[in-house]
Amino acid sequence: MKKNLLSTILVSGIIIILAATVVILLIFMKNQPEPNRGILPMVTVEALEPDSSIWGQNFPNQYTTMLQTAQNEDGTLYGGSYLRNKLQVDPRLLTLFAGNAFSKEYNEDRGHEYALIDVNESLRISDKTPGTCYSCKSSDNPLLWQIMGAEAYDATPFAALGKEITHSIGCANCHEANTLKLVVTNPALDTAFKAQGLDWTTFTRQQMRSVVCANCHVEYYMAGDGKLLTLPWENGIKIEDIARYYTDINFKDWLHPDSGAAMIKMQHPDYELYTAGSTHYNAGVACADCHMPYTRDGSVKFSTHNIKSPLLNLAPTCGTCHTDVDYVAERVKIIQDSVFITMIKAEDAIVSAIDAIKKSAANANADLTLIEAARELHRQAQLRWDFIAAENSMGFHNPVEALRILADAIDLARQAESTALRAVK
Amino acid sequence: MKKNLLSTILVSGIIIILAATVVILLIFMKNQPEPNRGILPMVTVEALEPDSSIWGQNFPNQYTTMLQTAQNEDGTLYGGSYLRNKLQVDPRLLTLFAGNAFSKEYNEDRGHEYALIDVNESLRISDKTPGTCYSCKSSDNPLLWQIMGAEAYDATPFAALGKEITHSIGCANCHEANTLKLVVTNPALDTAFKAQGLDWTTFTRQQMRSVVCANCHVEYYMAGDGKLLTLPWENGIKIEDIARYYTDINFKDWLHPDSGAAMIKMQHPDYELYTAGSTHYNAGVACADCHMPYTRDGSVKFSTHNIKSPLLNLAPTCGTCHTDVDYVAERVKIIQDSVFITMIKAEDAIVSAIDAIKKSAANANADLTLIEAARELHRQAQLRWDFIAAENSMGFHNPVEALRILADAIDLARQAESTALRAVK
Repeated sequence: MKKNLLSTILVSGIIIILAATVVILLIFMKNQPEPNRGILPMVTVEALEPDSSIWGQNFPNQYTTMLQTAQNEDGTLYGGSYLRNKLQVDPRLLTLFAGNAFSKEYNEDRGHEYALIDVNESLRISDKTPGTCYSCKSSDNPLLWQIMGAEAYDATPFAALGKEITHSIGCANCHEANTLKLVVTNPALDTAFKAQGLDWTTFTRQQMRSVVCANCHVEYYMAGDGKLLTLPWENGIKIEDIARYYTDINFKDWLHPDSGAAMIKMQHPDYELYTAGSTHYNAGVACADCHMPYTRDGSVKFSTHNIKSPLLNLAPTCGTCHTDVDYVAERVKIIQDSVFITMIKAEDAIVSAIDAIKKSAANANADLTLIEAARELHRQAQLRWDFIAAENSMGFHNPVEALRILADAIDLARQAESTALRAVK
Repeated sequence: MKKNLLSTILVSGIIIILAATVVILLIFMKNQPEPNRGILPMVTVEALEPDSSIWGQNFPNQYTTMLQTAQNEDGTLYGGSYLRNKLQVDPRLLTLFAGNAFSKEYNEDRGHEYALIDVNESLRISDKTPGTCYSCKSSDNPLLWQIMGAEAYDATPFAALGKEITHSIGCANCHEANTLKLVVTNPALDTAFKAQGLDWTTFTRQQMRSVVCANCHVEYYMAGDGKLLTLPWENGIKIEDIARYYTDINFKDWLHPDSGAAMIKMQHPDYELYTAGSTHYNAGVACADCHMPYTRDGSVKFSTHNIKSPLLNLAPTCGTCHTDVDYVAERVKIIQDSVFITMIKAEDAIVSAIDAIKKSAANANADLTLIEAARELHRQAQLRWDFIAAENSMGFHNPVEALRILADAIDLARQAESTALRAVK
């Protein structure tokens, strides 16, 4: 009996000690900080916060490198983030864009930090310009789209909307606050993916490292009287798909005053060209791999937000996969040289087409059916050329596709010319 | 004294033994076989030996795989070594080659073992055909060139020369006997390199693993009444260099009966397209790396001489450098599809040009200066298109260059058309 009592006391003691240990451990764990991704947030960022400097307190490396996009004065052979008047460099553009605001001003884009300044000072802006034109220029947009809705945003005149817009492109254009998750913020992109049966919330992080660029770097148009920002992706993202879309909805951006053709102005379809079967995209390389490479600064490794041409930064971009960056630089030059001379040939062909159509259309005896056919060929040629010309890589994002499209543009432009000639016997 | 005598005897003995050892060693070494490259030759091969089966006794793996080129029945999407009537597959060729023997017969090339059979049975051969047409078809050539000289060889009628020619392409076309050194055997190639100031005997072995293919896989023409095989490389190997060469010497292969243009038929310029800045060539890849990959058979490793498309043999070719051959195969398809549809557009453009020139030239009031200009444009367009069409890779040897050239061909062909239209007011 005495032995039994002793055992009971011993067992009870052990149980009490164990229970006390568990309670102490639980209290200790409760007082531990939340698990985090290695960086303690200094401030809580409001959802859709437009002011990148607030996000920057938590992510100083990303923020300060983003500010460096204001200091990229270096050009590359065919691009770079410095101001360059394309109309002066290539006067063919004055003929190609006659009647369109791009014949008033067409500059090489500067870095993201200049987006808002440059749109506000653009000679292309008039008192008829809709608010839509701010869609790719400001980190105020995600919050404004939530408050106003995209329809009201786009329908507001540019000047009026401008009062609400004070920040250039920033954190909120691509990231969810606090989680920093990459997100589609542009409602037009969200709609375009849905129209294709795609749900971007199911995309991998590596896919999103390209998709967030498509918040802006895509072809778009302004639909209807409300000038609603819309991506012409319903049939697909290849140039033929986009051309067919515009034909189906009978859309034009402007009427060419010389040829009389109903024209489409292509915007910066970097995402479409890159993802349409390019070797780098198919191999799994994201936009950010080349334009926002991982960078070391002291002990920290982060994705630089000084977005620019990888040609200005070969080692951490191309050099991640290619052992010989000198070889790569030479390769890029061969490709871009070939695309450039072919692009200029396309321009010459379209200028010839415009001249021929103008001349034939002025003839009272011209066959109007053929004149109309020539105009349609002009439209088709120029939207193909512009798909490559407006894109920001001089074809490098997808060399084979770029050259295929330019060859087609030349073919159609020269057919426009001969059709116009046939219209007058 | 006794000690001295003993020493003298001992020293003399050692000297005698050493001398005897040296003599024995020298005799032994003299009786050793010559140093060799690891394979004891079974037979000595005469210099320029035309019969590959004799070489084959020393190099049975190389020889027996060479014989396999008679058994490659597999096609690729756009090529392969099987007989295919191109004129049936693509009737545009009948218009493009009107007046030229290629409109009588134009087949996809079969393997090297068929070279002699196929040229002897070709419908392109007539009693006017010069011996020159055997230049790329036989291992009898190197010896015949040495005995006859290239001038006499080429000036001999095809039928007469044919009596001397009994072997298809073989060892002697690329190798020096016994040393197996890779050599330029075609006198036209030797001359062409010299004209460029190049000495092929100083080239590296890896360079020669492409250069020996240029013994045949190049553009050439038959110069003068003697029909001397000549490579048009004096200005360089890019298509513009070659076109300028033909203009400078005022050369034509035939007169197009419909357009009246002085035409150039391009032959198989695989070497020129590949070496004109392609990514593989610039990266140091030789023709043989992809078309004659190293192969294991039991314990032996050798370069297969069953020369064919690497698409039929991905793992030991592309797979040597590229980890994912499925990705590579998809990539090749994207490139070749793009080149193919652009090539067909070029053909359509040239056919339109021929029709337009024919129609305008038939008009008594036509501006003859413009008709002549249109004919020159036709010539320039078609030689560019043919540079890519006659080449054996559907652009893969140099995709960017192929598409650049085709875009140019389209441009020139459509300009030929509009110039012809302008000739008749």
